[in-house]
Amino acid sequence: MQRYFIDTAMTAAPGTTVTLTGEIAHHIVRVMRMAPKDKVELVFPHQQAYVAELTQTTPTVAARLIAQLSFNSELPVAVTIACGLSKKDKADWIVQKGTELGAQAFVFFASTYAIAKWDPKKQVKKLERLQKIARDAARQSHRLVVPEVRYQKNVTALCQLPKDQGVVAYEEAAKAGETAQLVQVTQQLKPGQRVIGVFGPEGGFAPQEVTQLNAAGFTTVGLGPRILRAETAPMYYLSALSTILELQTPVVQSAYSE
Amino acid sequence: MQRYFIDTAMTAAPGTTVTLTGEIAHHIVRVMRMAPKDKVELVFPHQQAYVAELTQTTPTVAARLIAQLSFNSELPVAVTIACGLSKKDKADWIVQKGTELGAQAFVFFASTYAIAKWDPKKQVKKLERLQKIARDAARQSHRLVVPEVRYQKNVTALCQLPKDQGVVAYEEAAKAGETAQLVQVTQQLKPGQRVIGVFGPEGGFAPQEVTQLNAAGFTTVGLGPRILRAETAPMYYLSALSTILELQTPVVQSAYSE
Repeated sequence: MQRYFIDTAMTAAPGTTVTLTGEIAHHIVRVMRMAPKDKVELVFPHQQAYVAELTQTTPTVAARLIAQLSFNSELPVAVTIACGLSKKDKADWIVQKGTELGAQAFVFFASTYAIAKWDPKKQVKKLERLQKIARDAARQSHRLVVPEVRYQKNVTALCQLPKDQGVVAYEEAAKAGETAQLVQVTQQLKPGQRVIGVFGPEGGFAPQEVTQLNAAGFTTVGLGPRILRAETAPMYYLSALSTILELQTPVVQSAYSE
Repeated sequence: MQRYFIDTAMTAAPGTTVTLTGEIAHHIVRVMRMAPKDKVELVFPHQQAYVAELTQTTPTVAARLIAQLSFNSELPVAVTIACGLSKKDKADWIVQKGTELGAQAFVFFASTYAIAKWDPKKQVKKLERLQKIARDAARQSHRLVVPEVRYQKNVTALCQLPKDQGVVAYEEAAKAGETAQLVQVTQQLKPGQRVIGVFGPEGGFAPQEVTQLNAAGFTTVGLGPRILRAETAPMYYLSALSTILELQTPVVQSAYSE
C-alpha cells in the first residue's frame, strides 16, 4: 500500500477526514490513478500511521482514517549519520540506503581531506534534493519518520550537536584490529537515546579531527577487518545497530562463539 | 599500497621474483607510474598476500617478494550472495558493495517475478563485467579473495548448490515480525563453512519459490522491521554476519539487552 507523510500537525483519530494536497494529491491522482475507496497509509507527525480510504479524488483529494497501524518500523534509538562531504551521487546513495536502514537524521560536514566542496549558494538546493530522497526512501521502506538532512561547516560544529552517545569509524582502528568497541557501546544504549555515528569523506579523516571527536566524547570503533568505502561504512554501522538492538540473541551460546 | 591479484598458482616465498604481465603491469606502469623500489601488495591463490618491491618496470615488470602479510581480511565463513535478477546497475552495486563486505561468491538467478531478464547471448559478457567489478572492489577493500560471479537459471538450480547452511530473506517474514532466526543460525556456523544467502529480485519471491527453498534447507530469516530494497538486503545480511562473527561480544550483558 502507498504510504504518504503528512507534515501538518493535527489530531488524527479513526473517522477523521483529511484533505490531501500538493505532491501527495498529485501522486494519488496522476501517478497512481487511484479512485474513491482505494486505500493508502498516512503517517502523521509523532510517528502515528493510519490506513485511510479515499472518499473523493475530485475536485480535491480527501481520505477518511480507518484504523491506526501499530507496527513500529523504527530503530529503538535515534541515529544520526554524519558523513564527510562526498561526491554527489554518494550523498544521494547514503541518504537513500541509510533511510531504508533506519537513520533518523543525516549530517554532511566539511572536513580537511574532503574531496568535494559544497558551494554555499547551492547548499539549500542540495539539502532540498537530499531531503526529497529521504522522503521517497522513507515511504518505500515503510518508515514512521522522514529523516532530516542538514549541513555542518566543520568537525567543531559536529562536536556540538546534542547526543547521548557518539561513535567515529576510523580506518586506522580497523587496521589495528579494533573489534570490541562497537558491540560494547551499542549494548549500552537505552531506548529513545540519541546516537551520532561519524564517518570520514573518501579522503579519510585528518588525525587531529579524530582527536577532536574523541575529546568531544565520540568513541573510535572498528567495523570489521575489511576496508570499507566512505558510503559503505554507514550502511555497515546501521545494519550492526539493527542486528544488536532489533534481532533476538538466543540465550544459549553456540559452539562458534565459545 | 596498491594490491594486485595473481591468478597463476606458484610457490610464493620471500625472495622469489615474480614477473607481472597484462592488466597488472599496465596498471603499475601506465596508471600508477611506479618505478623500481616502489612497493605493491601481491595476493596469490590460496589467500597468501605479500609485500613486494618492484625490481624493474621495463622492458617487463618484475617484483621481489619481501614479506608475507598475516592480516586476515576474510569473513570466517564462505558466503555466497544469491540474488534474483535485478536491473543492470543494481547487480553492479550488489557485487561492488558485497565484495567490500566480505562475500566470497555471487549468484544471479532467474525467478518468477524478476523484472530483468538476462539475454543468454549476453550472459558471458555480463558475468565478465561483474567479475571485473568484483576484482576491483576486492583490491580496494584489501580482500584476500576475488569473489566469483555466476548465473543460475532458476531456484531449482540454486537449491542444488553445495552448502553447509542456507538462509532466505523473505519480506513476508519481516512483516510478520520474525527476528530470531538470523542470529540463531549464524551463531551455529563454524569457521570455514559455506553459507548461501538468497535474496529475491525487485518484484520479490513467488510463494512457491520460498516453499521450494525451505524444502531444500534454506531457513527463512527476517532482517529487521523495515522494508529493504532488493540490493540493500544482502548488505544488511553481510554486515550482520560480520557483526555476529567478527566483532567481539562483551561477556557482561548490558542493561539494554536484559
